[in-house]
Order: sequence, then C-alpha cells, then structure tokens
Amino acid sequence: MATFELTREFIEELRNAISADNSKESGKLIKDLHAADIAEIFDELNLEEAKYLYLLIDGEKAADVLIELEDDVRDRFLDALPSDVIARQFIDNMDSDDAADVISTLSEEKQTEILQHIDDAEQAGDIVDLLAYDENSAGGLMAKELIKVNINWDMVTCTREMRKQAAEVDEIYYVYVVDDDNILKGTVSLKKMLLARANSKIKNIYNSDIISVDTGKDREEVANVMEKYDLVALPVIDKIGRLLGRITIDDVVDVIKEEAEKDYQMISGITEDVESSDNVLLLTRARFPWLLIGLTGGILGAQVISQFEEQIQINPKMAMFIPLIAAMGGNVGVQSSSIVVQGLANKSINLDSTWRKLLKEFSVAVIISSIFSLLIFIYNFFLSDTIELTIMVSLALFTVMMFASVFGAFIPMMLNRFKIDPAVATGPFITTMNDIIGIIIYLFIGRVVYGFFH
Amino acid sequence: MATFELTREFIEELRNAISADNSKESGKLIKDLHAADIAEIFDELNLEEAKYLYLLIDGEKAADVLIELEDDVRDRFLDALPSDVIARQFIDNMDSDDAADVISTLSEEKQTEILQHIDDAEQAGDIVDLLAYDENSAGGLMAKELIKVNINWDMVTCTREMRKQAAEVDEIYYVYVVDDDNILKGTVSLKKMLLARANSKIKNIYNSDIISVDTGKDREEVANVMEKYDLVALPVIDKIGRLLGRITIDDVVDVIKEEAEKDYQMISGITEDVESSDNVLLLTRARFPWLLIGLTGGILGAQVISQFEEQIQINPKMAMFIPLIAAMGGNVGVQSSSIVVQGLANKSINLDSTWRKLLKEFSVAVIISSIFSLLIFIYNFFLSDTIELTIMVSLALFTVMMFASVFGAFIPMMLNRFKIDPAVATGPFITTMNDIIGIIIYLFIGRVVYGFFH
Repeated sequence: MATFELTREFIEELRNAISADNSKESGKLIKDLHAADIAEIFDELNLEEAKYLYLLIDGEKAADVLIELEDDVRDRFLDALPSDVIARQFIDNMDSDDAADVISTLSEEKQTEILQHIDDAEQAGDIVDLLAYDENSAGGLMAKELIKVNINWDMVTCTREMRKQAAEVDEIYYVYVVDDDNILKGTVSLKKMLLARANSKIKNIYNSDIISVDTGKDREEVANVMEKYDLVALPVIDKIGRLLGRITIDDVVDVIKEEAEKDYQMISGITEDVESSDNVLLLTRARFPWLLIGLTGGILGAQVISQFEEQIQINPKMAMFIPLIAAMGGNVGVQSSSIVVQGLANKSINLDSTWRKLLKEFSVAVIISSIFSLLIFIYNFFLSDTIELTIMVSLALFTVMMFASVFGAFIPMMLNRFKIDPAVATGPFITTMNDIIGIIIYLFIGRVVYGFFH
Repeated sequence: MATFELTREFIEELRNAISADNSKESGKLIKDLHAADIAEIFDELNLEEAKYLYLLIDGEKAADVLIELEDDVRDRFLDALPSDVIARQFIDNMDSDDAADVISTLSEEKQTEILQHIDDAEQAGDIVDLLAYDENSAGGLMAKELIKVNINWDMVTCTREMRKQAAEVDEIYYVYVVDDDNILKGTVSLKKMLLARANSKIKNIYNSDIISVDTGKDREEVANVMEKYDLVALPVIDKIGRLLGRITIDDVVDVIKEEAEKDYQMISGITEDVESSDNVLLLTRARFPWLLIGLTGGILGAQVISQFEEQIQINPKMAMFIPLIAAMGGNVGVQSSSIVVQGLANKSINLDSTWRKLLKEFSVAVIISSIFSLLIFIYNFFLSDTIELTIMVSLALFTVMMFASVFGAFIPMMLNRFKIDPAVATGPFITTMNDIIGIIIYLFIGRVVYGFFH
C-alpha cells in the first residue's frame, strides 16, 4: 500500500457510485485505503453519503476511521447512531484512550448509555477511569493497554503471559516490569527477550533506568519529556508508583503540533482553531477579536494624535514618520516577545535569572536601536529639509525601539511567572499597546524637540 | 530514574567538584543521568570543564551525549579530539544515521580521516552511503539499522536470524519482510510472532499493507506521512523497491518541531534559528534584516505621505487615522496569509481550486471589512467633527482591508505554486508592502473625497 493522494476525480467517482446506490463499486474504491485516508474522504462528503459509505466498512477499520474523523464531523455522525451500535461496533474495537476521547465530546447521558452497552466490563471500566482525568494531563493522554511482566517471572512464564496480553495491544514498544504490588520497576526490551535463554529471570535482565510520569503531569511537559529522551512510549504511574497506563508517541506528536499551532495562531491574531477549509462564518469569527482590539487601539492612537493636532499643523512633516515609528516599535516588540515565547516553549535550558535575561535583551535593544536611529538620522540629515525633524525622528525611534524591545521581552516572562501562557504577549493586546505607546513617545519627543528649537 | 531538572545549585556543585579536580565526586553527580541531561549540563560549562567531565563518561553513553549536544558545542568538541578517538570511541557506538549527522558538519578531510579509522567496515560503508543523501530527504533521515526477515523463512529461522540482527539495533518497532532480492514486501509484528507457532512461515502471517517512502522524499512530507498514519518507523526504499533503511519517529518529531519553528520565526521577523540563550551578537543579527526592511518600508511610507503633505496641512485630522489604517491592513493581511500557510503546512485536505479559495477569502473579507468600516463610521459620525473625514476613513478602511485580506491569501498560494515556501508571505517584505499600499489607498481616497466636497 502506497500513500494515498486524494483527488477531485476520486471524490467524483465515489460520489457517482454512491448516488447510483452501487455499493460494490463504492466499497471497492475504499477497500484498500488506510483509515486516515477514509476519514479525509469523509470530510468531502455530505452526511447522507458518509453514512452510506460507513456501512460498507467493516468492524475494526470503521472504529479506526471514527477516531481519525474531525471532531465536529464525528459528533454529527455519532448523534445519528443508536448508543448500542456505537458501543458494540466501535467503542469495543478501540484502544481505551481513543474510546475515551471519542466519548468525551458527547453529552453525559449519551456517555452513560454507551458505557452501559459495552459488553467487555474491563474495557468499560478502563474508559470510565480515563474519563476522570483532565484531558490536558498525562492521565488524559494515556491508554490502559500495555504489556507488563512480573519481575519474578522467567522467560517461559513471560512468553506465555505476554501472549495473553498481546491480543489487547496494537503495538508493544516496551514490556514493562512490575513487582507483586504493580509498582513499576523498569522495562525489558524485546531485543533482550529475544536474546535471553528460557530459564533467565526478568529480574536479571530488566533495565531499571526508566522514565515515567505522574497522571497529573501537564501534556506539554509530557511532550517535552518524550521529545527530550526520544521515547516512543512513556509509562504513567500514580502517586505511589503503580503502573496505570502508557502514553504513545503518536498522541504526543499531536500535542506538539497543537501547541505549535496555538502559538502560531496567537501571533497571527487568530483566536480559534480554524483551517482554510472551514466555513466563512467560522473564519470570520476567528479573525474578529484581534481586529476589534486593533481598531480600538487605532482609535486610541487617533485620540493621542489629535492631542498633538496643532503641532502637526505647524509641522506636517511630523505626520510622515508616524507609521514608521509605529511599525518599527511593533516589529521589534514582536521579535522580543516571540524569542522569549519560543525559549519558554522549548524549555531551552537557561539558568539565568529574569534580571540577567532582561539585561541581555537590553543590550540587544541598545545595539539595534542605535543602528536604526543612526540610519534614519543619516537619511533625514541628507534628504530632509530640517535638522529639527531629523533629530526628533531619530531620538523618538531610538526611544520607541528601546521601550518596545524590553517591554516585549518583559511581558512574556511575567506572564510565565504568573502561570499564564506567555504566548499571550504576542497577541493583539500587547502589540496594540506597543503601537499606542510608540506614537505617544514620538509625539511627546517631537513636542520637546520643537520647544527646544523655538 | 525520574526526569532530571537542571538547577543552578547543581551546576555550581559540579563546577566546584571539577575545579577541585575531584573526579570521583564529579562522576557521581552525573552517573545516573540520561545522555540528554548530560548534554544540557555541557551547555552550561566551558570547554575545559566539559572536556574534563567527558572523560568520566563511559563508551556508549559518551556517544549518546555527543549526539544530544548542540551543533556548535559538538563541533568545538570534535575539533579538539584526534580522529581515531572520535572514530573508535564514538562513531563506532552510534547508529548509522546519528553517526552520519555528527560527521556531516565536519570538514571533508576530517570526515575522511574519521571514516578511515572506523574498524567496522559495514558501519563505515553505511555512513558513507548516508552522507550521500540530501539531509532534507528521507535518505538523509534514515538509519541503516533494522530487523528484516525473508518471506520464505519459518519462525525458527526467523528467531535465529533476528537474534543476530538484534545486536545492532536499539529499538525494533517493526520487523520488515523482504524477498530474496531485498524487495520490501511488508511487516510482521512482534505480537504476531509471539503468537505464532514455530513452524509457521512468514509468508502466511506477514502483513503486506505497508507504507514506505522513496529515499528522495522531502523530510516535511515524510513527517506528514508518519503523522497521518501514526507510524513509529517508516521504511525507506529505492526506485525498484529494495529496502534501504528506516526512519524512526524521534527524528521526525525533531523535523515537525523545526518546521513549526521556522514558520514561527518567519512570522515574528527573525531570520536565523536563534534562542533566547544565544549571545547578543547572534540575536542582533537574526533581528536585523526584518527591521531593515521595515525601516525601508517606513521611509517609502513617509515619501508617500509627503506627496500628500499639502492635503494633510489643510486637513490635519487625516493624519490621525494613518496608523489605524496601516495597522488594520497589516493585521488582516497577516491573518489571511497565516491561515493559508498553516493550511498548506498541515496539508489539510482542500480540493477547492485556487479561484474558489480566493473567492472564499473574498467573502470573509467583505464581511469583516464591512463590519469594521461600519464601526469606524459610527465612531467618527458621532464623535468626529466632519462628515468628510467620516466618509474618507470608512471608505479607505473598507478598501484597505479588502485589498490586504485578498492579497494576503493570494501571495502564499502563488508562492506555493512556484514551489517557494509559502511562509515567506508572512515575512517582512509582504507585510511592509501591505503597509505602504494601505497608506497610498487611504491618502488617495482622502484626496478624492476631499475633491468631492470642495
């Protein structure tokens, strides 16, 4: 099976087959496709077409497709199906973590109904356990399915027990070693097991160097741990060290993506998780708040400028440089904030204190502010008609860039200290504030310089 | 072993032990730490301290630490060591992909020297093979180490052969199935092997549904494939389907992170891969280009405004709204671009043609431009003194937002079509252009409206 590239032709062919009620043709078209590809096809179909097609997919794959669907598509789908069908056809075929994720977006009643229809009591119990965890914690990410062996077993017992357990687990990755109280002791690699003799005891070949997290660990930290230590699966333990589940890397890849997207959306002024394929209303709503703050900031800026109206009338050339000053302040502020935000997100080790970091940002600010105010000084000195304007613009640019630069670094550090997402600093509120303060500084300095010359 | 949190106290203690030449104490401090943690400690030490500490770490772990080091720290380190030590102590202990990565940043001569000192001819050959691939391709990401079995073997032969191969491979994940010509046929899960009887043949239990990529596949596409299909390892084949290596998820997590960071840096106006812990000079250099373009744009903007100087002198209130118009145009443009950029990066399925996408963007633009020009109309109508200014600002805001919105979506689509990274559209050049065009539109409309009233 190669990777599948969805084309308009394919969708058209499929739609034709569906509307002709040709289940044989429709089924053939999607037969060899991966669940992730089928889920993508579903995004392109209407609810009726999707339902028709869904009935042509068999058991386990249908469950996989359901997991891969976009949340809103899936919820509409599940609302249209009776609880016992959902329970027996889908939830029973899923890993506990996927099952909990799928159920979690439904209403309490529907959840209870579905859970009561699950025949496998252990699966139902696992799902109930998982639903109790915060979805942003390690507990919310983990699956209950894993392979574990007792530290006192020999290889023969291990192999026998693992065969039993393996039926429930899709991918093995690691075999966990626990003691009689289910306390996590370590792992034993499949490689070691392949190489070991039949009478070897687990306790003699297992590896006690194991990294685990507590159920309450934040998902971003979970991602950082797995990334830093290059882990494919991470065991989750309770307060006294009992093994409760494991988090697999595919879930963490999603977390990493989502966190990166959140920061990107914040800095680009989009307040909801939207994609270009979303509808016009959703796209508008996501873009509205930032623009509203921008407009309010612009009006405040206009108010500020109106306070200096007289001065601009005397010296209209001053108005020429308002956009330059505002833009440079904005640019330099966003740069500072985003460097700090990325540093915090990467947990890049930095043992310097906040003061030392600000001092460093101050040094960078002095250098770039000096360079750019010198550049604009040279430009104005040779090309502008008054020395007065030359001085006021350079002085203001220096001050505004210094302020925006240090302020831009300071805000995310402070937010982080107060446990607020530092990425907020790259959002509309702070950048708009930077704009206004920049204009105030410029016009104020302009007035002072003007007073000095007259 | 729990996760390790690096503290200033720890570094101080370690430094004291090193400066007192207390190798026992120093060794004890880092003994139980993971290679990734030791690498972080190295970032905090000077070269002399790092060298001292490095000699206290044994073979395989020392190689792991080397892999985890930041590129610049590692290169300085390797420059200080003789080639035969590098070859025998480190490169021999590494997976072929890590070895190739570590060597690739060194000079050609040093590479050759090191390769000649590797005792294991197979390892040396693998590294040479890997060095030939573009580092941004699947070939550049893959490792040669993997476990493969012949499709005609039975379980007994498999187990015996796998034991031989397993010594070279850190993590197994999948067992690949090939035919006599080394053509990739599928995988067989360890789970299936655990459950299979000794005389079962691979051909009867293997899974022929396998996703693989060609050596030339771009690393971003590799990441997309592994993410979409939730793969932990992805086999890499040549043009005729022979199995050459495999890419593991930990390398792809790094790719995902790096790509996200690249886009984030582009939109925040940072041109080099810097972190807040980098030195002042590097930070300055990374921020310089965007600011320079911003300054140039600001000067062009000032030129534009100066063309309208007379008009501003007659009607100085016009100047009040220049920053508002410029900022709103900039904001809305960045929003449009970033939505398109993220959509392209996620390969979110969207079968609409470019024209349909632009039409949609146009619809969104009409809605938001109307709302915001209405809002500013209301504000000015009730609070500003002239109907003339009210009309010119609203009209200009509508036009500027419409333009910036559609232009912001159009540019990344075009760049993508011409195989240029669409994220460039969120960078300084386009946003600065947006600013200037916004000002021109505003002042031009202002002049027309003024002409209409007088």
